[in-house]
Amino acid sequence: MTMTTGRVAPDRVDATLGELRSVLRPDQISTAGAVRDQHGIDEGLFAGVAPDAVVFARSTEDVVAAVRACAAHGTPLVPFGAGTSLEGHIAALAGGISLDLGGMDRVLEVNVDDLDCRVQAGVHRVALNDTLRRDGLFFPIDPGADATIGGMASTRASGTNAVRYGTMRDNVLGLTVVLADGRVVRTGTRARKSAAGYDLTRLFVGAEGTLGVITEVALRLHGLPEAMSAAVCGFPTVADAVRTTIETVQLGIPVARIELLDAVQVAACNAYSDLGLAERPMLFLEFHGNPAAVADQAQQVGALARANGGDDWSWTGDEAERNRLWKARHDAYYAALALRPGCRGMPTDVCVPISRLAGCIEETRRDLDDAGVVAPIVGHVGDGNFHVIFLVHPDRPAELDQVKALNDRLVQRALSMGGTCTGEHGIGYGKMAHLRAKHGEAVDVMATLKAALDPAGLFNPGKITG
Amino acid sequence: MTMTTGRVAPDRVDATLGELRSVLRPDQISTAGAVRDQHGIDEGLFAGVAPDAVVFARSTEDVVAAVRACAAHGTPLVPFGAGTSLEGHIAALAGGISLDLGGMDRVLEVNVDDLDCRVQAGVHRVALNDTLRRDGLFFPIDPGADATIGGMASTRASGTNAVRYGTMRDNVLGLTVVLADGRVVRTGTRARKSAAGYDLTRLFVGAEGTLGVITEVALRLHGLPEAMSAAVCGFPTVADAVRTTIETVQLGIPVARIELLDAVQVAACNAYSDLGLAERPMLFLEFHGNPAAVADQAQQVGALARANGGDDWSWTGDEAERNRLWKARHDAYYAALALRPGCRGMPTDVCVPISRLAGCIEETRRDLDDAGVVAPIVGHVGDGNFHVIFLVHPDRPAELDQVKALNDRLVQRALSMGGTCTGEHGIGYGKMAHLRAKHGEAVDVMATLKAALDPAGLFNPGKITG
Repeated sequence: MTMTTGRVAPDRVDATLGELRSVLRPDQISTAGAVRDQHGIDEGLFAGVAPDAVVFARSTEDVVAAVRACAAHGTPLVPFGAGTSLEGHIAALAGGISLDLGGMDRVLEVNVDDLDCRVQAGVHRVALNDTLRRDGLFFPIDPGADATIGGMASTRASGTNAVRYGTMRDNVLGLTVVLADGRVVRTGTRARKSAAGYDLTRLFVGAEGTLGVITEVALRLHGLPEAMSAAVCGFPTVADAVRTTIETVQLGIPVARIELLDAVQVAACNAYSDLGLAERPMLFLEFHGNPAAVADQAQQVGALARANGGDDWSWTGDEAERNRLWKARHDAYYAALALRPGCRGMPTDVCVPISRLAGCIEETRRDLDDAGVVAPIVGHVGDGNFHVIFLVHPDRPAELDQVKALNDRLVQRALSMGGTCTGEHGIGYGKMAHLRAKHGEAVDVMATLKAALDPAGLFNPGKITG
Repeated sequence: MTMTTGRVAPDRVDATLGELRSVLRPDQISTAGAVRDQHGIDEGLFAGVAPDAVVFARSTEDVVAAVRACAAHGTPLVPFGAGTSLEGHIAALAGGISLDLGGMDRVLEVNVDDLDCRVQAGVHRVALNDTLRRDGLFFPIDPGADATIGGMASTRASGTNAVRYGTMRDNVLGLTVVLADGRVVRTGTRARKSAAGYDLTRLFVGAEGTLGVITEVALRLHGLPEAMSAAVCGFPTVADAVRTTIETVQLGIPVARIELLDAVQVAACNAYSDLGLAERPMLFLEFHGNPAAVADQAQQVGALARANGGDDWSWTGDEAERNRLWKARHDAYYAALALRPGCRGMPTDVCVPISRLAGCIEETRRDLDDAGVVAPIVGHVGDGNFHVIFLVHPDRPAELDQVKALNDRLVQRALSMGGTCTGEHGIGYGKMAHLRAKHGEAVDVMATLKAALDPAGLFNPGKITG
């Protein structure tokens, strides 16, 4: 990957920091090597690049100060939440400032009757749900990692229960955003829907910090379900599991989660936790509702599963038993890592029309087998979204090259099937070439928007449009 | 309302039409007065302005030709679907061309397994559902009027079952859009979700033709429910009905529709159809699912209704009986019109956090009563969205002024409660002042986007940002 941007000159960074030292506390600025390194690399496949300094924001006003100082001196600025992104989103490709919003971690308001809340961008999703639980509410988006809400908004995160509750696109009601010139704009209202002009909320959701810095997020919430139940079932083939999923969605059965583990992943889970599962594709399901509804939903899906060759349907409404049934899914990532101790896990991320999902997974499995690569597949199959979990040894660069080539072919396969190069991880700089390959004209429009809102190109440079 | 744009010079229009006559058939261009008049006025409160000519597009290529010709000669262009908008959206404020997409009425593909389809922008929603029914599918967004899908996308339409199925924002998967310089861009993919760059789809949805001309729309579909049931119930007060709605939503009961008629509207329905209903606020509900689920949902909501003072809960799964129960809701608009024969119906459109809904409706009712104005109220209460149906005599301009003043106060009331000036009708030119009053900084950002994508300001000038 060639960088389109050079690194900012040190004197510009110094001038920026000098200006900020007059308005921020000393502990809000760090140039320590370890702090810089940690802020430049995420959890994905792509090389990190450390920023020149890290600024810790405590308020929207701090963000405005940082943005204005960067703008005044031409210093790049990369917003940072929890660093759990996967496509090199936070690499400081042009150097400059990493703006850490993790200290903005207050839940500002919870409106129980309206099922909404407003939080600072640095609130982590697990902490938010701990706060919401006392009011009988929850925020459903679960990307796995304990990301910040601002980071999840910026990458349009989703995860295991998007099939029922949607993604960050659907669950952000409004934003407070600091623009490239330091203006603060609030988008959306507390109304549940609106037809009031351009959808600025959706423009900043998924923009990965390239159009503005999100400092506050208003979220749609849901009531904690009265009852939850879980089911698992093995199938002869991936196609049988996907057919069951398609029929479930077509019938409008509101499954909360419907997850696929392929046979390689199930074998990994057996090895990791001694589960003794039959090593074939499995669906893991969760149902939310009242006791009658979750039983009825499970009964319906169970019938579909059996008609598609699933002959070991297990269902429970008991919490301990539910956790036992779902153990393989909960442990999937760690079980995958245990296949090759000492390796990093590198999950890919494509999403295809669900009618093409079984074919896409099966072709991908053949490609992996042909290459002699052991890599489990896990899918949010209700959405047509799946991940190959590659295992790469950090000291063997040839492995990384092989994985990148396999991932390129996977993305091409998904695109050729009418899918997208990323269902939920985003573009960062890891998928810019794929984005342009599929959506050239659209990327030109994105670049026009980027130039309009950030004409100096200082917000997270080198990402999405370049 | 002052126009910010002058009318385009006739020679520019002539040059544009001259160029188009060489590429379009003669019957695709009209300058007849009746045709022009019909294309300049919608069904709302605000004065129409006829375009100088109407061009009838049959294909995306025709749209490109029209856009290029308009761009070459500086001629404004206003996209036209069915003309059912309500805030002056299609008024040709600066003259120029009305581009009628009604002839682009083909359903291009229906993918049953993926629950999606792609249609030309001029397909009407009723015709689409007629086509989908044979595959057991439906498209749920129902704004009342038989609008075109392109028009519904452009105004971010919703309607009675948005509480369960969302709005056009949630149900458009992708678009084909002709940009101001004639480029054709496709947004989105057939994947159910994506994190691939800026959400261009959501940018054009709700942009009211000011950023581009939508020529094709990919839609998310739903399986026709196996069973539908309906319920109605009267309440002592609007607050009791709204409390029932809030509790229903909090419990996550997936009602398909939950509609409020206030006592004035119920009285109007009694007078119109001799129904003999108790003249107090009523909720109308619809449930979708399998027979067990719709019975269970109705049982749950019925219990909530009774606990909130609703003592005449009626429920049925029978289709004929369902239509009888819902008759008052189906006839609401015509019953309102019949209150003052010879008058036009003029529906307002605000949306507030649901915790403020009862207060907003009650204050509005007092304001109407104080003014001596008879105007029923109908609400999509699951979303916090409601309409006052004003009745204005066309020959009495003072009435229109009074209605506009009442509407202004209504919008101010909604904004002060954290709501929006429009839940589903859009801005057009009727609500530009309200949009700016509430969202000044955001409107500046919208104007920046408008200038970036349509620098000459030829797409539907004088709307949203001016």
